[in-house]
Amino acid sequence: MQAHLIALDWGTTSLRAYRLGEHGRVLEQRALSAGIMQLPNTPRRVAGSLCSDGFELAFDEACGDWLDAQPDLPVIACGMVGSAQGWREATYRETPASVDELSAALQTVRSARGVTVHIIPGVLQRSTLPNVMRGEETQVLGVLAGLNEQSASQPLLIGLPGSHSKWVQVAQDRIVHFDTFMTGEVYAALCAHTILGRTMQHSETFDSVAFDRGLASAQSEEGAAGPLSTIFSCRTLGLTGQLAASAQPDYLSGLLIGHELGSLARLHHDTHGHLPAVILIGSESLCQRYARGLAACGFTRVTVAAQATERGLWQVAVQAGLVARQSYHYVQEV
Amino acid sequence: MQAHLIALDWGTTSLRAYRLGEHGRVLEQRALSAGIMQLPNTPRRVAGSLCSDGFELAFDEACGDWLDAQPDLPVIACGMVGSAQGWREATYRETPASVDELSAALQTVRSARGVTVHIIPGVLQRSTLPNVMRGEETQVLGVLAGLNEQSASQPLLIGLPGSHSKWVQVAQDRIVHFDTFMTGEVYAALCAHTILGRTMQHSETFDSVAFDRGLASAQSEEGAAGPLSTIFSCRTLGLTGQLAASAQPDYLSGLLIGHELGSLARLHHDTHGHLPAVILIGSESLCQRYARGLAACGFTRVTVAAQATERGLWQVAVQAGLVARQSYHYVQEV
Repeated sequence: MQAHLIALDWGTTSLRAYRLGEHGRVLEQRALSAGIMQLPNTPRRVAGSLCSDGFELAFDEACGDWLDAQPDLPVIACGMVGSAQGWREATYRETPASVDELSAALQTVRSARGVTVHIIPGVLQRSTLPNVMRGEETQVLGVLAGLNEQSASQPLLIGLPGSHSKWVQVAQDRIVHFDTFMTGEVYAALCAHTILGRTMQHSETFDSVAFDRGLASAQSEEGAAGPLSTIFSCRTLGLTGQLAASAQPDYLSGLLIGHELGSLARLHHDTHGHLPAVILIGSESLCQRYARGLAACGFTRVTVAAQATERGLWQVAVQAGLVARQSYHYVQEV
Repeated sequence: MQAHLIALDWGTTSLRAYRLGEHGRVLEQRALSAGIMQLPNTPRRVAGSLCSDGFELAFDEACGDWLDAQPDLPVIACGMVGSAQGWREATYRETPASVDELSAALQTVRSARGVTVHIIPGVLQRSTLPNVMRGEETQVLGVLAGLNEQSASQPLLIGLPGSHSKWVQVAQDRIVHFDTFMTGEVYAALCAHTILGRTMQHSETFDSVAFDRGLASAQSEEGAAGPLSTIFSCRTLGLTGQLAASAQPDYLSGLLIGHELGSLARLHHDTHGHLPAVILIGSESLCQRYARGLAACGFTRVTVAAQATERGLWQVAVQAGLVARQSYHYVQEV
């Protein structure tokens, strides 16, 4: 089947490539480990010449054969590929940011094979403590594109849990505000590089009881001391025989996610007086944890979005005129 | 000069040995890296026999020659040496804990040379999120022993900043409550093992402007999002040209300490309606940071204690009858 677009989600540690057909339908997809911090470095021939540039090599691995078959396919990319350490820097657009504004600000880089790659800029929020994202803005646009009119008219909070969780407030189809929590990366550092990890026994199974207990600790009266203090309970509950080694990883996970979501709930209560509807974007297992945490913190309307990245890349390409405008089949329920 | 006591502060990574004379005066002191997690392991002769036990080897290195000169000297120790991974486990005493109770609960271990080592137990607080300490309780007792009557009669908060900061509430000469913040260890893990460390340039000089800015960020309206969120500003202020690489380490330090002390101030306001007098125990540079942070958080009476460890060890030895009761020369001003 003929493709209409090659879409790349090119982050720090991974590169996901999508070959998209009519209406943005995914015809084929690939996941490579060629993120911008771990590019290939073995020189080889690309488009007839010896090439040693990591970005060119990764690009060719990701979609060289697709372009050989259809050399005129437009290519769009989002993520850290547009950072100062990326292939070509796409300067941040500031909040509030809409799909129109981001689509009008694509940066381009011409690859060795002569194909132009269009890079979507990230978003910068110039608050006292600034915030930045690259890649997540495209996922948010993918969710917005799938909203029905009723959902699109109400304030919405889009959550992208991960190493650096992003919480994006959307109103009238624009990204108006966002917050970052380094929960995932802090969790990994605590497990691997502090005393808390020494008594932990990791398991493949999700321990929902331990996780919920961590959530409850964060929300308890003693949780008001904040995560710098409560995380020590992972050790002391172990020392006093109240928390098994195998329960400690998910207890700590629940504790940190509980602090993140408790802060988020307070911020929204203080600013808006109520908690908005939430759409989550992310891996199934992580969204499951966050959905539990959101429920515990009083967020009553929570849904999980699918295929946000490829939909967002498609949507920006349509808006930028790289592919002809075509309607979606998909509508996100909120 | 004749000694009256050998006092050991034996922690996870270090072993400090004091030879104490009349009134607990320090005649000689040594610092070894032979903490219980890095004991010596090269077998050699101790007290006439070949010895391969790490605790025996470390003990002999620390004070074997002092005992050769005065074989009848009593020996007292505090810290992780009394943990389950230590030389002999000294079961935790529960809060509230006084010097009398701790002195009556010394654990003993007989060394290869026939000398008995008296180990001071740590303290356990059985709250919903339990807390434990080993070694800090002795430092607290050292401060209490030096208080004049007026100071001893008022509620007091004793702060022991470090990898795991302890904040100990004292009333009527007893440890009634304490909190732990893993600020130091989290700081080290963030610098060495997260994206925040990648843009940092470390320096020997204390950057007080950056530190105070971190304190202010933690106390700001945006600081209410908590440390999991605000720490990302270390990166984004750098990305937006507002925070030099060389300023980032002390900014992050101020941010974390600001969150710790902000939480502490809230806890005390909520529970007692006012902020108590504070005495700090710790290295000069760390106490300097915490004193700045305490002032920023509204703690108006802050002093720094000297020689708390050796005074505490002496005080417990006196109370336990290991040495004859002798008055102090030193009075701590609050």
